[in-house]
Amino acid sequence: MALLKELDLRDAAAIGEELHRFAADLYPICRSITGNGIRRTLAMIGDRIPLQTFETPTGTPVFDWIVPKEWNIRDAFIKAPGGKRVVDFRQSNLHVMNYSTPVHATLPLSEIRPRLFTIPEHPDWIPYRTAYYKEDWGFCLSHNQMLALEDGDYEVSIDSTLEDGRLTYGECYLAGRSSDEVLISCHACHPSLANDNLSGLAVATFLAQFLSGRDLRYSYRFLFVPGTIGAIAWLAQNRQNAGRIRHGLVLTCIGDAGGFHYKKSRRGNAEIDRAAAHVLRHQNESSEILEFSPYGYDERQYCSPGFNLPVGCLMRSVWGSFPEYHTSADNLAFIRPLQLAGSLRVCAAILDVLENNRRYGNLSPYCEPQLGRRNLYGSTGGEAPGLEISARLWVLNLSDGEHSLLDIAERSGIPFSAIDNAAKLLCQNGLLAVVPDVAAG
Amino acid sequence: MALLKELDLRDAAAIGEELHRFAADLYPICRSITGNGIRRTLAMIGDRIPLQTFETPTGTPVFDWIVPKEWNIRDAFIKAPGGKRVVDFRQSNLHVMNYSTPVHATLPLSEIRPRLFTIPEHPDWIPYRTAYYKEDWGFCLSHNQMLALEDGDYEVSIDSTLEDGRLTYGECYLAGRSSDEVLISCHACHPSLANDNLSGLAVATFLAQFLSGRDLRYSYRFLFVPGTIGAIAWLAQNRQNAGRIRHGLVLTCIGDAGGFHYKKSRRGNAEIDRAAAHVLRHQNESSEILEFSPYGYDERQYCSPGFNLPVGCLMRSVWGSFPEYHTSADNLAFIRPLQLAGSLRVCAAILDVLENNRRYGNLSPYCEPQLGRRNLYGSTGGEAPGLEISARLWVLNLSDGEHSLLDIAERSGIPFSAIDNAAKLLCQNGLLAVVPDVAAG
Amino acid sequence: MALLKELDLRDAAAIGEELHRFAADLYPICRSITGNGIRRTLAMIGDRIPLQTFETPTGTPVFDWIVPKEWNIRDAFIKAPGGKRVVDFRQSNLHVMNYSTPVHATLPLSEIRPRLFTIPEHPDWIPYRTAYYKEDWGFCLSHNQMLALEDGDYEVSIDSTLEDGRLTYGECYLAGRSSDEVLISCHACHPSLANDNLSGLAVATFLAQFLSGRDLRYSYRFLFVPGTIGAIAWLAQNRQNAGRIRHGLVLTCIGDAGGFHYKKSRRGNAEIDRAAAHVLRHQNESSEILEFSPYGYDERQYCSPGFNLPVGCLMRSVWGSFPEYHTSADNLAFIRPLQLAGSLRVCAAILDVLENNRRYGNLSPYCEPQLGRRNLYGSTGGEAPGLEISARLWVLNLSDGEHSLLDIAERSGIPFSAIDNAAKLLCQNGLLAVVPDVAAG
Repeated sequence: MALLKELDLRDAAAIGEELHRFAADLYPICRSITGNGIRRTLAMIGDRIPLQTFETPTGTPVFDWIVPKEWNIRDAFIKAPGGKRVVDFRQSNLHVMNYSTPVHATLPLSEIRPRLFTIPEHPDWIPYRTAYYKEDWGFCLSHNQMLALEDGDYEVSIDSTLEDGRLTYGECYLAGRSSDEVLISCHACHPSLANDNLSGLAVATFLAQFLSGRDLRYSYRFLFVPGTIGAIAWLAQNRQNAGRIRHGLVLTCIGDAGGFHYKKSRRGNAEIDRAAAHVLRHQNESSEILEFSPYGYDERQYCSPGFNLPVGCLMRSVWGSFPEYHTSADNLAFIRPLQLAGSLRVCAAILDVLENNRRYGNLSPYCEPQLGRRNLYGSTGGEAPGLEISARLWVLNLSDGEHSLLDIAERSGIPFSAIDNAAKLLCQNGLLAVVPDVAAG
Repeated sequence: MALLKELDLRDAAAIGEELHRFAADLYPICRSITGNGIRRTLAMIGDRIPLQTFETPTGTPVFDWIVPKEWNIRDAFIKAPGGKRVVDFRQSNLHVMNYSTPVHATLPLSEIRPRLFTIPEHPDWIPYRTAYYKEDWGFCLSHNQMLALEDGDYEVSIDSTLEDGRLTYGECYLAGRSSDEVLISCHACHPSLANDNLSGLAVATFLAQFLSGRDLRYSYRFLFVPGTIGAIAWLAQNRQNAGRIRHGLVLTCIGDAGGFHYKKSRRGNAEIDRAAAHVLRHQNESSEILEFSPYGYDERQYCSPGFNLPVGCLMRSVWGSFPEYHTSADNLAFIRPLQLAGSLRVCAAILDVLENNRRYGNLSPYCEPQLGRRNLYGSTGGEAPGLEISARLWVLNLSDGEHSLLDIAERSGIPFSAIDNAAKLLCQNGLLAVVPDVAAG
Repeated sequence: MALLKELDLRDAAAIGEELHRFAADLYPICRSITGNGIRRTLAMIGDRIPLQTFETPTGTPVFDWIVPKEWNIRDAFIKAPGGKRVVDFRQSNLHVMNYSTPVHATLPLSEIRPRLFTIPEHPDWIPYRTAYYKEDWGFCLSHNQMLALEDGDYEVSIDSTLEDGRLTYGECYLAGRSSDEVLISCHACHPSLANDNLSGLAVATFLAQFLSGRDLRYSYRFLFVPGTIGAIAWLAQNRQNAGRIRHGLVLTCIGDAGGFHYKKSRRGNAEIDRAAAHVLRHQNESSEILEFSPYGYDERQYCSPGFNLPVGCLMRSVWGSFPEYHTSADNLAFIRPLQLAGSLRVCAAILDVLENNRRYGNLSPYCEPQLGRRNLYGSTGGEAPGLEISARLWVLNLSDGEHSLLDIAERSGIPFSAIDNAAKLLCQNGLLAVVPDVAAG
């Protein structure tokens, strides 16, 4: 299987537009960690890939946590003394602090002020705030909006419910030849924020679609979960099976114009860490490898010490490091079709490494085999060998049953795809054979 | 125990003045590797801390060495033809080559010249010279002094004794909960030289005073020994017990205006090496970590291959690298109160690491525990966690029974004290428990 | 044995001239991978060192290869319509593509053109081309020569034979105290090319001569082989004994004005790799250490995975990286007497390390022994120890039976020769003893 090669046959611009369109379809929905917003989102993902939805009742203990009440919202506003909606949920779902308890009251501005959140440095942007685990309410608005408020009594209304219900997440499982799994996880709980994380949802959905129906080495499990509590719930409900996860990626903030960042798993040298670093080194956009840290997205949970799964996190701009993060400026213009397509491409390249990374044995290990007579070498002596021949020589030299193709790619500095091609060609020529990999199944 | 925190409650300037005053009190004494100078020095240290003095007779074999004769001196001079003392021991004890045999003679200048030592590049400074292990005599003087000598007969007198006697060193032992020891060693044999090593004596004395009476994890052994032969004698007489030394520091040249230098133990990666490097990285003055080498101070003996103890050497300017080294310019003005206090502070910070460095186990290792409900997390989501929360997350993530707090501090880049605070807070909240450390006792 | 010390007593300029003269004697011979050219070359080497010649018949399988037909050539030319030899083998043996099949014909220029090879960027140089493993013929000439050819019928003649015969290589074996071997290998198949590889042949020959008759720790095996097929034939015929090779060097392109390059063995951290890197670091010419790669010279075969021998490659300019490579400009002016002598010197220094690298045990491991009483230390205290004393202290400190002298030289940054001298002096003084090295024999 050569995912990248096949993907590169398609039109990247068209794929990018499709990805962006899917993000745009999901954008208006008011998601939260529970409720109908995430249900609708999962339903739209389920239109594209086989998705199973799981619901966990409020109050269910999941490790150290308890599934919270379910939150839903219909409308919210602040009305000025004259009756005009000066802050309006229908304009942007960011205007309501996510998980706000219901309220309906008329209050002087001075009493409302402590519940208003703005970003003075970016006076036109609306911040994104949440109050998941303590009951509270509030509004978010642009700083200019707030400055324009005159003293007086305002009618505030949040038409929400916070009641016993369910926590919802979605799983797409694609069976491969082995029951060992590759996990792709992304959080699906943020409302109208595009990079964080409609970008991840869109890329993961398209990736699952792209893998679907193929003959795969690994089984693939795509998780669309509310951040933190969703990953925790999944791990609590799949504790025994988590050991099957051989490699994993959290996808987030993957559609903006920035270069790539890959944050390593807690292990720091897992195959996924090496595969991602290798792929990023050999593609054209700028990229940086970050050490593991115990904050960020759901890799926090997958990499908690009791699990210590080999799960890294692929991003473009790093959460918290760009000003648009968690504001209304993380909108559909902030994510770009070509960047979304590029992210899908990098994911495919990483999976190509995982799918094809094997150890081989040189069947002619004493001295070099005579490549020339097999038309595997240049015909006239004296030239520096090109990349192809070089890849063949590296594969032959290091295929002692101990080095994987990724080891060889790393040591030689040659892209994995060229190493993999060389290995397959050498197999066809009877010079190489796969070493059965017991552990990988 | 948080030594540094407590020390920082005191007035650093006042501590510095006190340290400098103690060095000033010790400065005039003519010390050597044996004799009454070191005895008086130890007595003055013994006024401040519980000090036991040990005396080893001349001729006693200590490993490959033999305890030398004891040297004492009352007076010495060179008198010009007119009778004037042109070189006078009463002006500076550096004027006599240390360990000079007695002499009284009148000699032409030409015969004295080969026994006169000066520093032409620093014509006002008196050099410091010794003749410990071969019987000899000589004078040290400033180059300008020597240039001023006119031809003629000079009376030279060294009123010294070099006779069977004893080698003296002092030990201060502070018992802790464990019989495992931390060794603090400094040489006490140099005459009127301030940085080398009244600085070390003063800081070590104050450190012992500061630790005295506390509930300590480790036992502490402070050694005030004549350089080389003293450390060798101690090791020869404590060969079996040397194995108890789990960590050690040689303190020398620790009062000048230079930045810190820590020279690693022979092991290169001992806990003391890592603790010192960590502390120096997280304090404000410049610092440099030096690889081990088998020359320098008494770490040479502690790190000899038969012992290979984890003992490093903490300095400010490195011996031999500053022009004042081993000259009369290494005087009381060359050492600074604030620098002495700063060195004491760094020692306390290093001991804090040693005292508190333990391995912990996360009692809730599957996914993150819910810090918010315990008021251990920020209350409103969406902000990058500050140092405190970050420290808690790191401690939880890496407390798998294998990582020590120092491991966690190193990997996270967070100061040990913040990591240690986090660990203690998490213990109080039932999220963490100490892993019993069999080896450390 | 101190090879370098002894070599340095001789006149480097005279040695260089001798080396260059030997290369000049070998230069005119038209060598190839088989035939009388290499036979004559080996005979001339055999005039200087004890050389045994081995011949393997055409058709003999050697691992994946088959010994090819033997090639010989008497004359070759292209005659212009007027009868003038415009391309003439007697002017340069590079004019004929090496291994060209016999031909005699008169052909229009247009039919000859595809068989003419030139270097347009260097219009005065003749390229070097070969056609070893597919039957073909062709001519090499300068680009200017080719431009001067006018249309017309040309007589082409290659008076060669390509027939069943033998493959020839030479071995010089110098027995040492151990049957463990050091391999020195160089390819002897190139015609009139000086750096590649008359430089290697000359240096290897002189090195063998220099070692001959000495009391050696290791046995030495010098191989003068046709590139690739020769090394493969030797390995096929010495498969069992190859395991005796403890260290090895391929010598090539070792006479030009460039700095040194050492390419590591496949193992990457073999003793030869460390010895070569150490020696190059401590000599005066520029040098660079290159990672192993599976292309280059016969280290390809020695480092194939079935053998994985610790064989590196010592060069000056790297093959393929200088424009003169494989052209007529790689002539006797391109190699320099002083550079040839310098290469011999580096080889001797590397062998010095291998011959003398042992582990020692400190017989006085508890504290430092008293060097002063043995006149092994400076007599007046207080000075920074010089290199000699420093070397003694390092050897004493690290001679715990685990560190070899090369380990000590690497860690201390002191040249191996000074470390080795110190070890021998300390042995003479009863402070050190060799640790028997079972593995090294």
